Amino acid sequence: MKFCSECGSGLTLRIPAGDNRPRFVCTHCGTVHYQNPKVVAGCIPEWGQQVLLCRRAIEPRLGLWTLPAGFMENDETTLQAATRETLEEASARVEIHGLYALFNLPHINQVYVMFRGRLLDLDFAPGSESLEVALFSEAAIPWETLAFPVVRETLRLYYQDRRRGSFQQHLGDIFRSGERYEARMHAPG
Amino acid sequence: MKFCSECGSGLTLRIPAGDNRPRFVCTHCGTVHYQNPKVVAGCIPEWGQQVLLCRRAIEPRLGLWTLPAGFMENDETTLQAATRETLEEASARVEIHGLYALFNLPHINQVYVMFRGRLLDLDFAPGSESLEVALFSEAAIPWETLAFPVVRETLRLYYQDRRRGSFQQHLGDIFRSGERYEARMHAPG
Repeated sequence: MKFCSECGSGLTLRIPAGDNRPRFVCTHCGTVHYQNPKVVAGCIPEWGQQVLLCRRAIEPRLGLWTLPAGFMENDETTLQAATRETLEEASARVEIHGLYALFNLPHINQVYVMFRGRLLDLDFAPGSESLEVALFSEAAIPWETLAFPVVRETLRLYYQDRRRGSFQQHLGDIFRSGERYEARMHAPG
Repeated sequence: MKFCSECGSGLTLRIPAGDNRPRFVCTHCGTVHYQNPKVVAGCIPEWGQQVLLCRRAIEPRLGLWTLPAGFMENDETTLQAATRETLEEASARVEIHGLYALFNLPHINQVYVMFRGRLLDLDFAPGSESLEVALFSEAAIPWETLAFPVVRETLRLYYQDRRRGSFQQHLGDIFRSGERYEARMHAPG
């Protein structure tokens, strides 16, 4: 961020009056340009004992497997965003059950909101951002070639809940610890 | 948004290749400027049978009562954001229990993430954005002078759960219907 999106002038990094952290502020018109985390909404599409995964056709993590998820857009809800991403990435129609997990990823300024969803039919197919989409039983989940730590943690919790016979809602943080990523889950409220 | 924040040139509104909705795109360097919803994190600070509310010293809704909540910043988690906002607006220290409710507000592109929190002491005081802060029993809640529909709905659910003797996690949408706002809650997953 180098120029003011309102007037095109240069920006300076300083703490505005009444604030307590540095922001990009326009040197000409004074507009403060806030930067905030983005929401990623996604879904665990279920078909009986199987879940639908997508193999990524785009960077980052091209070629690796993920749950359908993507950036929430303006003018939609998290539930609509998860449904839309599932349609775009896997051409799959889901009926969302409810909120399943919220993950904070502060190292990349993202908040993941994950839902469970029931696949409505088997007419799925790769969207433009996927190389292939397929159903997996727990034994077949490609744990070693999953795209993101947040996908691994979501699936780990999902199968743990399923073995226990009841689904909880989860809150956790994924953080970077040296070269590795760790998940820290919070106790239910 | 009128100028490119990367090179200062003018913007045009068009659908980029491979996308499906209009974005602000730089006419010179081609940078696509995405606009996404923001996360507001907040807290229901509890002290026995009472909850802490803040009377707003700033617009919008100056003079009306609200729960401590504010925009999540980069480099923090939603839980840290809710704790920080409670400290900033009410000088109050809380121990967060867990996620309580997630609300989508698509008409203003916000996602509210609300927690329940236990007040650790009674040394609260108005922060710079509050005129006063006070504890309220259910009978004393100023329903007619609450600042935002999402605050009203959060408190309504909270007391409903408390009367039932157990707290659920809630997912809902607040949407504008003519001159009014309505809450549409989703069934638990």
